Amino acid sequence: MNFDKITKRIRPKEGERDNALKLFNHIKTYILESFGKESIIVGSVAKDTFLKEDMDLDIFVFFDPSLPKELLEREGLRIGKSTFNHFGSSYKIAYAEHPYVSGDIEGLPVEIVPCYKVASGRHIRSAVDRTPFHLEYVMEHLNDSQRDDVRLLKKFLKAQKLYGADSRANGFSGYLCELLIIKYNSFANLLAHAIQWERGVIIDMNGNGKGFEDPLVVVDPVDPTRNVASAVSLSTFSRFIEAARTVSETKDVRMFSGPRPGYQPVDAGTFVVIIFDIDVIEEVFYAQARKFVEHVVKECGDNGFTLFRHGVFSKGVMLDIEIGQLPEKEKHRGPPVEKYAHAEKFKQKHPDVFVEQDVLYTIRERKYVSIDDLINDIIVSQRGLGSSLKRASIRILKDQEAVNAIEKEIIFF
Amino acid sequence: MNFDKITKRIRPKEGERDNALKLFNHIKTYILESFGKESIIVGSVAKDTFLKEDMDLDIFVFFDPSLPKELLEREGLRIGKSTFNHFGSSYKIAYAEHPYVSGDIEGLPVEIVPCYKVASGRHIRSAVDRTPFHLEYVMEHLNDSQRDDVRLLKKFLKAQKLYGADSRANGFSGYLCELLIIKYNSFANLLAHAIQWERGVIIDMNGNGKGFEDPLVVVDPVDPTRNVASAVSLSTFSRFIEAARTVSETKDVRMFSGPRPGYQPVDAGTFVVIIFDIDVIEEVFYAQARKFVEHVVKECGDNGFTLFRHGVFSKGVMLDIEIGQLPEKEKHRGPPVEKYAHAEKFKQKHPDVFVEQDVLYTIRERKYVSIDDLINDIIVSQRGLGSSLKRASIRILKDQEAVNAIEKEIIFF
Repeated sequence: MNFDKITKRIRPKEGERDNALKLFNHIKTYILESFGKESIIVGSVAKDTFLKEDMDLDIFVFFDPSLPKELLEREGLRIGKSTFNHFGSSYKIAYAEHPYVSGDIEGLPVEIVPCYKVASGRHIRSAVDRTPFHLEYVMEHLNDSQRDDVRLLKKFLKAQKLYGADSRANGFSGYLCELLIIKYNSFANLLAHAIQWERGVIIDMNGNGKGFEDPLVVVDPVDPTRNVASAVSLSTFSRFIEAARTVSETKDVRMFSGPRPGYQPVDAGTFVVIIFDIDVIEEVFYAQARKFVEHVVKECGDNGFTLFRHGVFSKGVMLDIEIGQLPEKEKHRGPPVEKYAHAEKFKQKHPDVFVEQDVLYTIRERKYVSIDDLINDIIVSQRGLGSSLKRASIRILKDQEAVNAIEKEIIFF
Repeated sequence: MNFDKITKRIRPKEGERDNALKLFNHIKTYILESFGKESIIVGSVAKDTFLKEDMDLDIFVFFDPSLPKELLEREGLRIGKSTFNHFGSSYKIAYAEHPYVSGDIEGLPVEIVPCYKVASGRHIRSAVDRTPFHLEYVMEHLNDSQRDDVRLLKKFLKAQKLYGADSRANGFSGYLCELLIIKYNSFANLLAHAIQWERGVIIDMNGNGKGFEDPLVVVDPVDPTRNVASAVSLSTFSRFIEAARTVSETKDVRMFSGPRPGYQPVDAGTFVVIIFDIDVIEEVFYAQARKFVEHVVKECGDNGFTLFRHGVFSKGVMLDIEIGQLPEKEKHRGPPVEKYAHAEKFKQKHPDVFVEQDVLYTIRERKYVSIDDLINDIIVSQRGLGSSLKRASIRILKDQEAVNAIEKEIIFF
């Protein structure tokens, strides 16, 4: 398969990166002159692995490791705010392991993040301290043609909704993409290997990591105690393999476009969308939405309902239901007859029992005859809802109304 | 619990057995004088363990073990037919391991069966040769009060539809009942033990049987290679335990009456009765009906339908259906993604696949949306039908019509 056409489409325009680096230099100079602090640009712009018109400046300001965390956070915020003010831009405070400042400067998204300047990736005091070493490693090992392959991989993963080591995609980080291309030399060769992957693949370029149990293990070359692919869930891992096979077989360039919004429910089923109206950061929202939808799926299974598919999107969850209506009575399995004490307890609860093979059964009223009743009950009693979703105002939409509500949404499965 | 009232009800009237033995003596004399053959009466009349007004004369005619089987069969039939003719009765030929003659003489059911006179239960040439030794063992070990306990046990098992080592009940033979009372001394003591039974109970009164793997093992004291309880299925075994517990707890004398005919379907389900119109001996009919209903239950499960209960009766099978209607589409599970070859094969068959966890799925048209379609298809293509049922003319009844059709039938589960 020839990826040249796609590469051309996603490679940044001449000068795009230079302009960004020029802006970074202005910021760097301001921070040095005003606060006496060194700073660097990290991330995909620094590594030249960003997709066309998809730049952001991740600026790390270095602090001495002897500085207490509270002071690092306070100083980091002071420098960040002051920088945005200096360039006449608004900003907001974002929260990762510690707070940082983000906003737009001259039309480019900029983040200003404080970090400790440590001796190596093994001596970090906070997760971000590792980032400068990642940058260093990638700059040393990635050549120019491989940069295009990283771009291809990122574009492919984005289209497949597998990009991002966050609770939205449970997927591949940018750094993971870079390491995979370093390991396999090219996107094409990565595909050739990935189609044969089985759970437990271990990529350990320096040969000193161990004890990881994730579906995909890529030992961080700058810190062997860390699996760079730890965010990749079993589903993401399997979907990547499946997508790699499909693109290898079909050579379909549409697998690099998208992700396409909306979802077309299976006809003849029932389609439900639950919308949580609340102001909360994306990472928290997706994490709680995922937890909630998995909880609903589990209760559906426990009560005899079945689903075609389920997913999360930026405002809630969707459920495409196969069997959503059941008879009023159900056959309820009890303990084996030979477990005397259990059998007696079951009979006390259910006076009418019968035996099949070695097991007691009874016929009982079904708790939920319709999946609507179940979903309402889950929501009313707040089962499976994280603390943020508990505060949300909740709407339940069905069938065509539900389809319409998500027609512009990207659904993550 | 005091069983005296029930014992009184089921114990034969004064003179009932004497009259039967008198008739047997006439028959015995006729066979000896006309054919020079010895004969004995075996079975529950001989052992005095029969229920009131429930007698039959099982007459065994002895032959020398040197006689070839074909001659034994021919001579046996000749003697049998001639005996019925002599007493002015009609007869028919029945078939067990070999053919025999049965009919009514002076109002009593009589069977005349040829057997070899062998040295011991271990030297038998045909299953019936063991019977005289069973008779001998029971006469030696059972006392008069225990005879009433055998009757109680038989009556209890009959009411619970667990009596008979045939394909109708998959249950307890008369000889098994006698051995259980010999082992446990009384019906009450048998119940006290049975409520605690677990699969694999071994009752080996002479301590020389082994290698049996049935739920209940009662080693034949006259032939240690044989499990007297081999016909007792796991369901029958478990139902007996369950019934023993219930009668012990409730002391309900109604547990000795019946079996009650008919079946009341669970409301809100679908009820189906399939009637096979054919003339075939009972043992074959029940065996094939059981095999068929189990086959239907399996196909129902494979296709997403669920059942409350199912059973067989003298003319067919019944299905009490919980979920008999399903959506037109179904979620179909494929192989794990990491099994490359299997996954590729699945995708060739199903172009639209998706991944959950590590497994491929597709949405496909359901083969059977209604259980009616499935049942019709099973019958049209004769799946699960034994050779006799294949020749039957078949009717399918539903709901009230189905309930009416079996209101006088005893259902065996």
